[in-house]
Amino acid sequence: MKKIHNTQILSWQQHYRTNLINALSGFKPVALVGTADVMGNTNLAVFNSLMHIGANPPLLGLIFRPDTVERHTLGNITSTGHYTINLVGRSFVRQAHQTSARYPSGTSEFEATGLQAIFEDHFPAPFVKESPVRIGLRLAERLDIQANGTHLIIGEIMLVELDEEVLEEDGHLRLDKADVVCCNGLDSYYLPQFMERLPYAKP
Amino acid sequence: MKKIHNTQILSWQQHYRTNLINALSGFKPVALVGTADVMGNTNLAVFNSLMHIGANPPLLGLIFRPDTVERHTLGNITSTGHYTINLVGRSFVRQAHQTSARYPSGTSEFEATGLQAIFEDHFPAPFVKESPVRIGLRLAERLDIQANGTHLIIGEIMLVELDEEVLEEDGHLRLDKADVVCCNGLDSYYLPQFMERLPYAKP
Repeated sequence: MKKIHNTQILSWQQHYRTNLINALSGFKPVALVGTADVMGNTNLAVFNSLMHIGANPPLLGLIFRPDTVERHTLGNITSTGHYTINLVGRSFVRQAHQTSARYPSGTSEFEATGLQAIFEDHFPAPFVKESPVRIGLRLAERLDIQANGTHLIIGEIMLVELDEEVLEEDGHLRLDKADVVCCNGLDSYYLPQFMERLPYAKP
Repeated sequence: MKKIHNTQILSWQQHYRTNLINALSGFKPVALVGTADVMGNTNLAVFNSLMHIGANPPLLGLIFRPDTVERHTLGNITSTGHYTINLVGRSFVRQAHQTSARYPSGTSEFEATGLQAIFEDHFPAPFVKESPVRIGLRLAERLDIQANGTHLIIGEIMLVELDEEVLEEDGHLRLDKADVVCCNGLDSYYLPQFMERLPYAKP
């Protein structure tokens, strides 16, 4: 085993440190966050910081870093109070990744990547047509993380659209049936293979 | 596509809602969190809420729910200021899952599951010997989430121990080379297959 201390991590060049620390936290979901500004101009950005916060009420969280392309997303969420989260399937991984490019202001990542925006039930943010799991959220809470200036944005799930083939009888989802991917670090994509579902653990 | 509204989600039985909402956020890391109390009694608990918070300083986050077995973990982190995060490999998934059982107070999940505790560099929390990626953290920040009473616990990475075969030249990790698993929902385990690493996206 290779042993690395905090002082070494802080002494590394930024590129190396960013790669290693981003990969350390294991496999992560890949989500496209869809928003619109108050004029209706759409924005789409890929995130790997999606997390479950709670089921009742149904809450999801995302971490936002201030000085990135994500800032349009955060601005739109703040001004409209709504956004969508769309899980990414194998067939559009490259388009999802491409939304992380710094397009000029006024360019929608939907047009730039060819992913299709759809609007449902007058929800004020666009969903991604290609996605097998689409979630519409209403902004619920924003927490500022003092340790590094990032933000945790929590939203309540208002609308879900699911590929029916992934839904199990007890509410569980078999996301592999829709070829949903995961990632590691900033740029590595993986296709999870189902191993097993384990029973509730008892002593 | 099946469409589900917020009011339906709130009307479901708890078991169904918990299954579906936990699965909605996609694939998640599987991490064993190791702690000790001030007397040195060890504790080990499986988490699927591990998240990257930032690389400089190197920070990781975990979500804690108050009324679960995780409370021993949170108590130990608060009293000692330290904990470990150990990624889970295919060979010990069942033992990792088993740590979620409600063992009587005074039983260490290390003994109960057969996973081996190791201590490194006088770090005041136990690492998991079987893990190919072990991380020692110092408590940095605690945020209370108003929306549902959960807590985001952020730690700074003080020590990393890595299986050398996963480390790439530029700092990236190929976690699949050590059979690191991911999960979906509360109980489904998956083995990610490497697809591709994509270049930094440009317009």
